[in-house]
Amino acid sequence: MNDKILGADNKVIKRFFNLDTNAYQSGHLDVETKEMIGLSCSMVLRCDDCIRYHLGKCFELGLNRDKLFEVFSIATLIGGSIVIPHLRRAVEYWEALEEEKNGLQ
Amino acid sequence: MNDKILGADNKVIKRFFNLDTNAYQSGHLDVETKEMIGLSCSMVLRCDDCIRYHLGKCFELGLNRDKLFEVFSIATLIGGSIVIPHLRRAVEYWEALEEEKNGLQ
Amino acid sequence: MNDKILGADNKVIKRFFNLDTNAYQSGHLDVETKEMIGLSCSMVLRCDDCIRYHLGKCFELGLNRDKLFEVFSIATLIGGSIVIPHLRRAVEYWEALEEEKNGLQ
Amino acid sequence: MNDKILGADNKVIKRFFNLDTNAYQSGHLDVETKEMIGLSCSMVLRCDDCIRYHLGKCFELGLNRDKLFEVFSIATLIGGSIVIPHLRRAVEYWEALEEEKNGLQ
Amino acid sequence: MNDKILGADNKVIKRFFNLDTNAYQSGHLDVETKEMIGLSCSMVLRCDDCIRYHLGKCFELGLNRDKLFEVFSIATLIGGSIVIPHLRRAVEYWEALEEEKNGLQ
Amino acid sequence: MNDKILGADNKVIKRFFNLDTNAYQSGHLDVETKEMIGLSCSMVLRCDDCIRYHLGKCFELGLNRDKLFEVFSIATLIGGSIVIPHLRRAVEYWEALEEEKNGLQ
Repeated sequence: MNDKILGADNKVIKRFFNLDTNAYQSGHLDVETKEMIGLSCSMVLRCDDCIRYHLGKCFELGLNRDKLFEVFSIATLIGGSIVIPHLRRAVEYWEALEEEKNGLQ
Repeated sequence: MNDKILGADNKVIKRFFNLDTNAYQSGHLDVETKEMIGLSCSMVLRCDDCIRYHLGKCFELGLNRDKLFEVFSIATLIGGSIVIPHLRRAVEYWEALEEEKNGLQ
Repeated sequence: MNDKILGADNKVIKRFFNLDTNAYQSGHLDVETKEMIGLSCSMVLRCDDCIRYHLGKCFELGLNRDKLFEVFSIATLIGGSIVIPHLRRAVEYWEALEEEKNGLQ
Repeated sequence: MNDKILGADNKVIKRFFNLDTNAYQSGHLDVETKEMIGLSCSMVLRCDDCIRYHLGKCFELGLNRDKLFEVFSIATLIGGSIVIPHLRRAVEYWEALEEEKNGLQ
Repeated sequence: MNDKILGADNKVIKRFFNLDTNAYQSGHLDVETKEMIGLSCSMVLRCDDCIRYHLGKCFELGLNRDKLFEVFSIATLIGGSIVIPHLRRAVEYWEALEEEKNGLQ
Repeated sequence: MNDKILGADNKVIKRFFNLDTNAYQSGHLDVETKEMIGLSCSMVLRCDDCIRYHLGKCFELGLNRDKLFEVFSIATLIGGSIVIPHLRRAVEYWEALEEEKNGLQ
């Protein structure tokens, strides 16, 4: 779908997607910190697709469960109980990632 | 899923879930009023899962349709037409609750 | 300022303002319940002007502090810590209303 | 579902639905401009159902792809990367509308 | 203040500001339509600074009051009564722009 | 003002404030990371008071400007141009903190 969006020849959207890739690359902050920021912002803004995307990245980077749940706790506290359904789906998705990895081993 | 979240041994999240249970218990305000507040806030924040949860509680408490639709009307007015798709699903869910109850009688 | 908005001869806006007045009038729900709903929704949506408006109405209706703080607690829990600055200003405004009333007696 | 909502005999909701129909009718602004406004607002507020509704209207009105993507680009820029999943689904839906039309010809 | 932000040597922010300028330039959509989109999105997202910015642009472009109020009406309907305080300030600011212009003539 | 809120004898609010303090204490994540998460979430939710609070904490912790602007860049990208006015005020406040510190030396 990204290909179709980028194929539409709209410069603003193309550059925006480009920026989005650049912003999370290693810089003065390491990639793990940036992904935790991306994850927590996605939680308080309650976007399941964005949460899954950043969870996937955090998982690839080897973020451990204790750190993950501290990100979850801050995001839930800031965003309130309205975040809880997204928290549930986030935990569910994380466990799916863990199971998938365990199955592959 | 709550069990898994609570099993993760994160105190902030555990206490938050605890608070969430306490907040809606009968106090200076009765439970029905609290659930109507929970329902209307869930509607203006546009969280379908939260709306369903509070609709379920309101239904158990015997809230009548006229009162329910006044909650709906205030939430729609405050939150705007962006609330309408959630209003539709709320009405749909309420009718499912009514039908389920009628089927059981 | 409302006069200027209503004087602009835009039917949709005029009717919207009209609806806004009607929605909070006594119906199947009493006015106090409606104002508590208006207050809590304004808190989770974080609109200080709206919060003040509904606090004023709740104060006129004689809502007591214990009930008020239960509305505050549910709204803070649903909306999260991001609501706290608005909660502070709400308490401040309520106390100003109390002091004003005491000064007049 | 609208019939059920309107059948509930709640005046505020009925009038609100009425206003919602009136607001997008041709006036000082043409219908296409109004629908582009409705579409962009739905995107920044991240409501898929609302986006689909206004995309359908824009498609009926013959809005071309270049204009459409400029609406998309402004909405994405204003609302941020959190809008991207909705942008993807919007493009997907638009293509479904195009394919459906082509299939009918 | 923009100078200070841009002087901070953060590429993502610099490019974002650049995109923000490009997005509103005349393209397949004319500038007036783009500014009305920017204005309505700013209203439903309830950002007074953004509203003022786009109102200033709309005023410079000679948007007439009837069109302006139709943008206001759609944004208020979509965003709900929570938009009203921002609508009030928007009308106030527009009148200040008109008075300033009349004073200069 | 916190004293007055906590003095109101509402358990849910008291415990919520307590949680809010606990969540940012050093745990599996260090305090700096938690404050950057708090800052970025406050930015995408557009709460100036919350942004200032977390900026103050980040400043006390000695967060450097390069890292700070990477937090800003991700938050602006996620939240969109609607975040920019808050970004401006954030930079302004950060510079005030720097000047105050320099003046004290």
